Amino acid sequence: MNLLIRHTHLATFAQPDGYGELHDAALLVRDGRIAWLGAEQDIPAGLGELQEVDGQGGWLTPGLIDCHTHLVFGGDRSHEFELRLNGASYEEIARAGGGIRSSVSATRAVSEAELLAQSLRRLDGMLREGVTTVEVKSGYGLDFDSERKMLRVARQLGQQRRVGVQATYLAAHALPPEFQGRPDDYIEACIAWLKPLAEEGLVDAVDAFCEQIGFSRDQVARLFQAAKALGLPVKLHAEQLSDSGGALLTAQHDGLSADHLEWLDEQAIAAMAQHGTVAVLLPIAFYCLRETKLPPIAALRAAGVPMAVSTDCNPGTAPASSPLLALNMACTLFRLTPAEALAGMTRHAAQALGLQQQTGTLEIGKRADLALWQINRPAELCYWLGGEPLLGRWYNGQQG
Amino acid sequence: MNLLIRHTHLATFAQPDGYGELHDAALLVRDGRIAWLGAEQDIPAGLGELQEVDGQGGWLTPGLIDCHTHLVFGGDRSHEFELRLNGASYEEIARAGGGIRSSVSATRAVSEAELLAQSLRRLDGMLREGVTTVEVKSGYGLDFDSERKMLRVARQLGQQRRVGVQATYLAAHALPPEFQGRPDDYIEACIAWLKPLAEEGLVDAVDAFCEQIGFSRDQVARLFQAAKALGLPVKLHAEQLSDSGGALLTAQHDGLSADHLEWLDEQAIAAMAQHGTVAVLLPIAFYCLRETKLPPIAALRAAGVPMAVSTDCNPGTAPASSPLLALNMACTLFRLTPAEALAGMTRHAAQALGLQQQTGTLEIGKRADLALWQINRPAELCYWLGGEPLLGRWYNGQQG
Ligand SMILES: [Zn+2]
Ligand SMILES: [Zn+2]
Repeated sequence: MNLLIRHTHLATFAQPDGYGELHDAALLVRDGRIAWLGAEQDIPAGLGELQEVDGQGGWLTPGLIDCHTHLVFGGDRSHEFELRLNGASYEEIARAGGGIRSSVSATRAVSEAELLAQSLRRLDGMLREGVTTVEVKSGYGLDFDSERKMLRVARQLGQQRRVGVQATYLAAHALPPEFQGRPDDYIEACIAWLKPLAEEGLVDAVDAFCEQIGFSRDQVARLFQAAKALGLPVKLHAEQLSDSGGALLTAQHDGLSADHLEWLDEQAIAAMAQHGTVAVLLPIAFYCLRETKLPPIAALRAAGVPMAVSTDCNPGTAPASSPLLALNMACTLFRLTPAEALAGMTRHAAQALGLQQQTGTLEIGKRADLALWQINRPAELCYWLGGEPLLGRWYNGQQG
Repeated sequence: MNLLIRHTHLATFAQPDGYGELHDAALLVRDGRIAWLGAEQDIPAGLGELQEVDGQGGWLTPGLIDCHTHLVFGGDRSHEFELRLNGASYEEIARAGGGIRSSVSATRAVSEAELLAQSLRRLDGMLREGVTTVEVKSGYGLDFDSERKMLRVARQLGQQRRVGVQATYLAAHALPPEFQGRPDDYIEACIAWLKPLAEEGLVDAVDAFCEQIGFSRDQVARLFQAAKALGLPVKLHAEQLSDSGGALLTAQHDGLSADHLEWLDEQAIAAMAQHGTVAVLLPIAFYCLRETKLPPIAALRAAGVPMAVSTDCNPGTAPASSPLLALNMACTLFRLTPAEALAGMTRHAAQALGLQQQTGTLEIGKRADLALWQINRPAELCYWLGGEPLLGRWYNGQQG
């Protein structure tokens, strides 16, 4: 049956800049796709049997796309959060079993069903804030079976809820205890595990953590080669804590995105612009780590690099399942305009996932991934903290 | 009928420090008050007819108390937020009708019913995060009728929802256009309006904005004298942008609280400790204004000044209705421990409102204002951003 959402304003994001505002408008969905949109008075006649939704004078936007999350994980790290605030040093926390290793232990130990239940709770928080597509990374398993368990849970999230899930293989997230002192061997293992997981249909893209405390450019390059051989796109955690040249490497591999980017340099910006690599900004992690070095927003803007915004939802550096908070922090801390921030969680986030043909804008032919909001103008989504502005959410034309 | 909440852990906040943890415990409510609490195996026999609530192994805390809000206001300021991010100067925004004056115009223009409807939406966001008592300030009316309208709406909030509302008279929030250049005359008007409003039962406390861009110490002192003559307690917006001596003045008037306090000095800290004046910390405003000068947390802690934490919910400098976000920011930005932050929204927030005999802790005889949370430990409330951890909320023993 056709679906007509009317008495609403549209923010289409059909162009790279601005909201693409259409006031007093309506949008028609047929077979899960956007079939028509335009002014209320131009609604075509003879639409046949029709479900009508009253937009109540609110705004309809593309469903939000959270393009960088680690939302599948076991345990929680609130104890470590508390230890740190009580003055414990990083070594003391590590000795107390804290840090990423605690998430790895907990994720390995938990059953697939329990991991799914815990992850659904976080996902549901995102859906209540209008998310229709979410990327989910592995990377707390760090052995074949546990990475596979995480990726299977990611797939199940997409089956249990009306939401698109992109699964990213991030085995090269940290060095597991079994490979202590042998990072090159671990990268070989990551490469060996990738093929069967990809063949099982569990992998949409490949990611790594390129940093002095992570993996080197050379190690990441070997992983990227393996991904390329399997036809999988790549992306990278790059330039968060230092300039390791990871974003440049990613652009040279025609990567989907380079993420974090606080220490990004001009050469990498030019390469990202040239190769269409999206800059994924993660302001919640910046806030939680109390970083002071901002990503080079003005230079990215000047070079025309598309900027996406995401939660980075993870138990350590961004314990957050709120895309709306990420939007506010992108504005408040990174000084993005509200239009840039919102494009960064719709149009440009779709591009960061290689889904720009399918979703991320309100355009005829796109999948009907929609969020309807009780707001007076789009900027309100970036402005107000808390509350529940969502009136409705549709994925593939189905109300979620 | 008696209410028994069991299979839960308690964070009582019965002492000034720590959570007051009681594991595997239960709590009994009789006639809206806490009648008993203790270990699960010690639940008294013969309790008669009983409604039992299964705490599901979560945590029961005092209901949250948001002790500093401006949640009643007309209009919104998302347009101004957007203008600023697009590079407009403060003068340009003022010329475009922005700033506090836009909230005053909108609040004056709106009907009481509409003001109530808009405010209820914000309040409901707070209730979903476990709030059982909220303070609400006037201060966007700035004339008798409009201040009265705001205070009446504050009272109605407490009638429409199961929540305690403390109404604060903040006519001395800003200089209205009618009194341009005549701040002393305006303070006299504020004093003249106070008596009839207090007699109408609309005022629980008196507040002002003491700042170079607000009102002077002398002007505030005159207002405080008038409050004292009416038997009303006082509090103050003090030392947010400069050291104006407002906190010292407030302590000398045995004020309930001095709020913001980024520029607080040692002398005022000593006076606050001596007079029992609570330090109300407002980290969301600090974040939104991108302030860099932190309030003197270590000195307040050393002097034993009770610290409260609040949202400051307002359309300009803290567009937020999320007490849990304020808790996270108190930890992340101000480095409070989670136990301090949570005491700051329970025990010490009650004291900031003069309600420490009634609410804010789990102790026998206190009003049964309770929040039940799906969390593994109390610190999780400060740690995770987003999601909906609340399982249940009771005000005066009634589920809200
Ligand atoms: Zn990440
Ligand atoms: Zn205030």
